[in-house]
Amino acid sequence: MIIVMKNNTVEEEINKIKRKMESLGCEIHESRGKNYHLLGLVGDTSKIDPSQIEANRNVDKLMFVQEPYKKANRLFHPEDSVVNVNGREIGGKKFIVIAGPCSVESEQQILSIAEDIRESGASFLRGGAYKPRTSPYSFQGLQDEGLELLKLAREKTGLPIVTELMSPDKIEKFIEDVDIIQIGARNMQNFDLLKEVGRTQKPVLLKRGMSATIEELLMAAEYIMSEGNERVILCERGIRTFEKYTRNTLDLSAIPVIKKHSHLPVIVDPSHAGGLWWLVEPLAKAALTVGADGLMIEVHNDPANARCDGQQSIKPERFNCLMEKLRRLAKVENKEL
Amino acid sequence: MIIVMKNNTVEEEINKIKRKMESLGCEIHESRGKNYHLLGLVGDTSKIDPSQIEANRNVDKLMFVQEPYKKANRLFHPEDSVVNVNGREIGGKKFIVIAGPCSVESEQQILSIAEDIRESGASFLRGGAYKPRTSPYSFQGLQDEGLELLKLAREKTGLPIVTELMSPDKIEKFIEDVDIIQIGARNMQNFDLLKEVGRTQKPVLLKRGMSATIEELLMAAEYIMSEGNERVILCERGIRTFEKYTRNTLDLSAIPVIKKHSHLPVIVDPSHAGGLWWLVEPLAKAALTVGADGLMIEVHNDPANARCDGQQSIKPERFNCLMEKLRRLAKVENKEL
Amino acid sequence: MIIVMKNNTVEEEINKIKRKMESLGCEIHESRGKNYHLLGLVGDTSKIDPSQIEANRNVDKLMFVQEPYKKANRLFHPEDSVVNVNGREIGGKKFIVIAGPCSVESEQQILSIAEDIRESGASFLRGGAYKPRTSPYSFQGLQDEGLELLKLAREKTGLPIVTELMSPDKIEKFIEDVDIIQIGARNMQNFDLLKEVGRTQKPVLLKRGMSATIEELLMAAEYIMSEGNERVILCERGIRTFEKYTRNTLDLSAIPVIKKHSHLPVIVDPSHAGGLWWLVEPLAKAALTVGADGLMIEVHNDPANARCDGQQSIKPERFNCLMEKLRRLAKVENKEL
Amino acid sequence: MIIVMKNNTVEEEINKIKRKMESLGCEIHESRGKNYHLLGLVGDTSKIDPSQIEANRNVDKLMFVQEPYKKANRLFHPEDSVVNVNGREIGGKKFIVIAGPCSVESEQQILSIAEDIRESGASFLRGGAYKPRTSPYSFQGLQDEGLELLKLAREKTGLPIVTELMSPDKIEKFIEDVDIIQIGARNMQNFDLLKEVGRTQKPVLLKRGMSATIEELLMAAEYIMSEGNERVILCERGIRTFEKYTRNTLDLSAIPVIKKHSHLPVIVDPSHAGGLWWLVEPLAKAALTVGADGLMIEVHNDPANARCDGQQSIKPERFNCLMEKLRRLAKVENKEL
Repeated sequence: MIIVMKNNTVEEEINKIKRKMESLGCEIHESRGKNYHLLGLVGDTSKIDPSQIEANRNVDKLMFVQEPYKKANRLFHPEDSVVNVNGREIGGKKFIVIAGPCSVESEQQILSIAEDIRESGASFLRGGAYKPRTSPYSFQGLQDEGLELLKLAREKTGLPIVTELMSPDKIEKFIEDVDIIQIGARNMQNFDLLKEVGRTQKPVLLKRGMSATIEELLMAAEYIMSEGNERVILCERGIRTFEKYTRNTLDLSAIPVIKKHSHLPVIVDPSHAGGLWWLVEPLAKAALTVGADGLMIEVHNDPANARCDGQQSIKPERFNCLMEKLRRLAKVENKEL
Repeated sequence: MIIVMKNNTVEEEINKIKRKMESLGCEIHESRGKNYHLLGLVGDTSKIDPSQIEANRNVDKLMFVQEPYKKANRLFHPEDSVVNVNGREIGGKKFIVIAGPCSVESEQQILSIAEDIRESGASFLRGGAYKPRTSPYSFQGLQDEGLELLKLAREKTGLPIVTELMSPDKIEKFIEDVDIIQIGARNMQNFDLLKEVGRTQKPVLLKRGMSATIEELLMAAEYIMSEGNERVILCERGIRTFEKYTRNTLDLSAIPVIKKHSHLPVIVDPSHAGGLWWLVEPLAKAALTVGADGLMIEVHNDPANARCDGQQSIKPERFNCLMEKLRRLAKVENKEL
Repeated sequence: MIIVMKNNTVEEEINKIKRKMESLGCEIHESRGKNYHLLGLVGDTSKIDPSQIEANRNVDKLMFVQEPYKKANRLFHPEDSVVNVNGREIGGKKFIVIAGPCSVESEQQILSIAEDIRESGASFLRGGAYKPRTSPYSFQGLQDEGLELLKLAREKTGLPIVTELMSPDKIEKFIEDVDIIQIGARNMQNFDLLKEVGRTQKPVLLKRGMSATIEELLMAAEYIMSEGNERVILCERGIRTFEKYTRNTLDLSAIPVIKKHSHLPVIVDPSHAGGLWWLVEPLAKAALTVGADGLMIEVHNDPANARCDGQQSIKPERFNCLMEKLRRLAKVENKEL
Repeated sequence: MIIVMKNNTVEEEINKIKRKMESLGCEIHESRGKNYHLLGLVGDTSKIDPSQIEANRNVDKLMFVQEPYKKANRLFHPEDSVVNVNGREIGGKKFIVIAGPCSVESEQQILSIAEDIRESGASFLRGGAYKPRTSPYSFQGLQDEGLELLKLAREKTGLPIVTELMSPDKIEKFIEDVDIIQIGARNMQNFDLLKEVGRTQKPVLLKRGMSATIEELLMAAEYIMSEGNERVILCERGIRTFEKYTRNTLDLSAIPVIKKHSHLPVIVDPSHAGGLWWLVEPLAKAALTVGADGLMIEVHNDPANARCDGQQSIKPERFNCLMEKLRRLAKVENKEL
């Protein structure tokens, strides 16, 4: 961390700050130019709260040399992390596919889709039981009943299940019943919820917030990891931009950038990103080529009558055909699918 | 709601959609151009989930004529809402000021600040007890102890207290102890939390999310109101933009826009918006002139040593001087301060 | 176009608007709901200026059924456009690669790079002669001398040349000397410049503005095409977002979206998008897989000493290796490279 | 400027960079931590092109201590600049109002509006002759004829005229005929145009680009000033955000921020910002209170039939009434209006 002091700050004030920083265990390197005066802090600055320094009226600004995340940082953990879920690995050489409907609607629906995607080669089943909806008047998911149906589908197909947790009071149920706990984009900075899943040992699928930077995504992962749970899988699902033809803009450069700065596995959700079924195939293929560890894809047997997000769901036949194309690309890219 | 069908959709498919919409209680007005075919829905469309129509592969797009919010909508409630908090009114002719430190730090601190702001004319005391912080390694607030200190300050000064609720499991405590429950920007779409405060009869101060549109803010208010609690106060606190000199960009045009579309009172937080203490005065004055119902301002007796956000806090003397200037402007603008 | 009238507009005002629209050659379909009143315009609305209708105080808002672009619209030109440049095709089955340095620096530099990229399989040479720079104190390009060096490189290698035009007063020179005229991101809405290149018959490479929507990009193409020049190639080069690790965010979903709405060829610039050399390879591969018609890549023989943008340039050897990988992917994707 | 070297960079490479920087006239302060190695440059770094350092593969990142603009920087010019236009001052204690129609439409129109706004107290007349329009099919302004009508209006009313220059080839005409040359938002980074007006001695009204940061706006001013013309007036006119109710989001915090970093006068355009006539009054008042040096307001005698942007224009009577309110606020704020 580097402190830029204001011009003409009196010596006494500079000494005060220096003593304060030294008392926090930092060594100080001073550097003076014609129009500026810098204090470089050497040592472990991760415990220093920047806003406490910025509050000093003689400080012009702060500049950060190191990333604010530690456990999620590749610098301190150079090897790729691989998350093992009931014997299935996420990360490393593997390219995994999570598929299923936006929301669980009925026993017949979820069993039929689960069977179809398993046959096409998906390795995890997704399905919403508790749904975050923009309008209070929209379908909010089948709730507990939806979770029971997911468990039934797991029993029949052997596919581990992924579903979203929205409130800390369901955590016991999720630990018991779910294989991967999903934290949705709108809750990426719901810090109490992050701490809650951080206290479990369940794999967590953490989606990037709609306007979150990659640093903020990694800080959200840090919240979970700092509580003791290091089994975090990141998910890029599109960010908000000015573009109107698509619901969000998929940020595929986030994949190599995250891989450079962090050791955590990262997958891509092409369905939510564009919000349009005909974008799923090209974006899924691009996600594989750009280096993602997997995909999360919405598949529905009857999109036109889906209770939510049918416009971004593809049918099982189309999903099967997409898996075929992904396998051909995976071979070129040396990924195991 | 208007459904734009794709070119060349066969008659049979159009009839299917028409029958479906009619079964939902809508009358249909059809309109055909050379290159398009529209179905206008007349009647109460608020219960129709748009994604269920967009999912139809023959639908090109949907266009919305009416706003998706009802209880927050001025159309159905032309008079300004006034929220009464322990005898103090927010909305209408009043211009109120909420002031206090970012976080409660000690008995001495909160009592001293509370006393100062009351004397300067503030009508509510703010102070964070449970703090949402970007880093898990930053100060997270004094928690329950902070809330006790706020109660003590209320007892000594008579000022009603405002503090942020982060998790549903504290709701009983907040109903008991707090005068206005604040929902922070990061939780604006934490729908389970919104429903929870919607089930109480406590006034709720709802902050706009960092990248939220005004429609999304009003839909978040709708979540609270649809559960039965109509005592919602909105708060503009800056939105994320590309600008780097300020932490966020205060959207002052949001005030007249919200007042046009909704009957709810709306206040402005100039401290969080800019993130810089020297911006508080000009932005506070502009907020009054643009038509806000009040302000929320961070005041600290020792900003340089504040445990959080000291760089955006002003000292009690400066606050006093600001209140003086606000009173002069209030007179020109016919507001009671 | 659909006009949403305000509630309670008197009949006389509605009739006025109807007569005005009819006088412009539109037929009108009226539709009344409980809380709204719509006028749907049937006929050619492309000549109606929306702001002239919105200005009417009885109009609540306008909704658009059709896209505002015509010549760039796939609706009226279903076949893919292929732009032929000196016998080389851009669009259709081809996947082309434009490569070269950010700016032309010397004869030795441009000849050496041109030779290298030609051997690796690039089909066009890029190089900046007139450079748009954020600071007036930065290197502004070799100007006319740079253009002469590009011509020399073309003579030696046979590669057609692409370079940026910044001002209308160079247009004669560019018509004479350049094979593809580039319009940079900052000039995407420099309408006088667009009209100028629209009056030539030169192929134009039009880059998307940093914060432009796809519709705005297509409207910029429309400016060129409406003057008579239909040889437009679009280029996605990253848009401004809140992300800080990358200079811009490459919007790869723009490729399938543009291909759906327009018949024009579209290529991708992975060098400017991320601004980081190690992002070029993964993004270039993803661009091919997502369906782009080609790439524009910065290659420099000595990036560490490049006069601009060295941090996003790759060396000829790395470029050669990338071309190898692209060829393997092109085979899977049925593209000719 | 501070260079952050990558971990484990060998001594030889560090020495190479140090020698290169020293050869550019900088002194170097070195600072090593456990996980980083910094080189602080002391001296005049304004001539060093950052991209030339970032290109070095051993450099992790650059951090900037000083602003990149010099002539526009308050640091080197502590006094407020006042631009004198035909005896009328912009900046300092004055609060000026520029008013007039979006585009000049006829002699009758411009004369009538000019007369009205002069009587209400405006000090400059605006009016578009050459119009930048998103669609090539929209009205492009009366061009040269429009300019002649503006001159006529100046002759009749004595009001100096402001109009937009879109292309360098009109510069002679503008020097001759116009009192303040406006550079529009879309041309804020049209560097050739900036240099062109920089070579004149005409006052330039420079509008902030739709997605430009304040630093970019000041760098655009720097382009003009570095050519010798220091008579620059800045104009905040709204930035692009995700908000849909307003065309752009007026950034009023930009005013005190610009005043802190620069000595140039800055005015506000509330008409373009919101794009809605009923927003003009509250935003104009807020602009005065927040500290702007003036306003630019669209006034039209018949908005419903205006040839462009009628929805954001106010009528002369409303303008007159607004001026009254502004005068009352100006008195409180100690501004001369």
